[in-house]
Amino acid sequence: MKNQEIVFSKNQLQRYPIYLKLFRQLYEKGQISVSSPQIAKELGYSQEQIRKDLQAISGTPGRPKRGRSLERLIDDLEVFLGYRTETKAVLIGTGHLGGALLNYPNFESMGLHIVAAFDNDPAKIGERLGGKSILPMEELKGTMEKEGALVAILSVPGHVAQEVAESAIEAGAKGLWNFAPVHIAVPEGITVENVNLASSLAVLNHRMLSALSKEEQ
Amino acid sequence: MKNQEIVFSKNQLQRYPIYLKLFRQLYEKGQISVSSPQIAKELGYSQEQIRKDLQAISGTPGRPKRGRSLERLIDDLEVFLGYRTETKAVLIGTGHLGGALLNYPNFESMGLHIVAAFDNDPAKIGERLGGKSILPMEELKGTMEKEGALVAILSVPGHVAQEVAESAIEAGAKGLWNFAPVHIAVPEGITVENVNLASSLAVLNHRMLSALSKEEQ
Repeated sequence: MKNQEIVFSKNQLQRYPIYLKLFRQLYEKGQISVSSPQIAKELGYSQEQIRKDLQAISGTPGRPKRGRSLERLIDDLEVFLGYRTETKAVLIGTGHLGGALLNYPNFESMGLHIVAAFDNDPAKIGERLGGKSILPMEELKGTMEKEGALVAILSVPGHVAQEVAESAIEAGAKGLWNFAPVHIAVPEGITVENVNLASSLAVLNHRMLSALSKEEQ
Repeated sequence: MKNQEIVFSKNQLQRYPIYLKLFRQLYEKGQISVSSPQIAKELGYSQEQIRKDLQAISGTPGRPKRGRSLERLIDDLEVFLGYRTETKAVLIGTGHLGGALLNYPNFESMGLHIVAAFDNDPAKIGERLGGKSILPMEELKGTMEKEGALVAILSVPGHVAQEVAESAIEAGAKGLWNFAPVHIAVPEGITVENVNLASSLAVLNHRMLSALSKEEQ
């Protein structure tokens, strides 16, 4: 991986897929290069931020006035984000959210390949969801080892999330993508990334109500 | 709302539902008060952070040594997070993700009441999903006005998200909860909160690979 010495903040990492989406749109429309002012206008980030972000993954542009080549930016972003390298994952918990994730059409294009789905409900074992057979938890370790899966996607209820996380780590997971609304404690060397809808809703609610009360004043 | 003068950062707002979840768990187990060191141990935040967060929504505790009353903390958090006040929302886009969100069991307990679901696919109109009839987009404005819905949940494909957002704002939405993987431009006074799976995956991937390459060294 490039630029290993740069420490990327979470906010910065989160911006890269948004740049990539924009650059692909512009490229599809026939544009061949893009300038910081145009990106700033489209995404609302400062030009300074944009230059810093892009320099970190794509080096300095040759001639500032002409902007950056979209083809090269798309290339560099796809490599940086790991979209060109397959990462194998298992999904644990096949309720509504698990089903939605198994059916999510974009993961493959981001390099994430879900190889199998697991549940602890005997009634679900053997059913098919998003093109995968649902397997029992007893097969988790064998499947992860055989497939070389590094990521476990946790779409289980909060009260079992810690226990399921521990099984996944025991089975070889190095990264947990946690959709359960709880904190998960993990040993050093294991990465957890949370998608917490309650936290996101808290931000929306608070900011919306603050904006509304300002309007009323 | 309390403490309107305090400006809450996004990270801070995101922590409150995680505190609430922990406090409810401890309370259900029979505990009556909680100390910053215990919270720090459970959630991995610093004690200073915890004290600052809780003071902002719950005032100073009476006697530091005894910890804070869980009952009062739960009460203050539920009020602060708006879980005691109903916020009405519509959901637009009834694909897999929209279906998962309509079936998500916890929104009601967070004060979010989804009053109706919309889609632009004629084949889906009138079908039922998560207990709601799917309505055509032409009825969006009438429904939002009649119900007093302030939030639009956008679970539509990226290429139509901006257009759908504009319809929702025109129909009276003050807050957009955006699950489409694109940036949405909105006028002042409108709040957007994004749940971007590509961004979350970028963070997981990058951190996991950095941790793995450290181990190898």
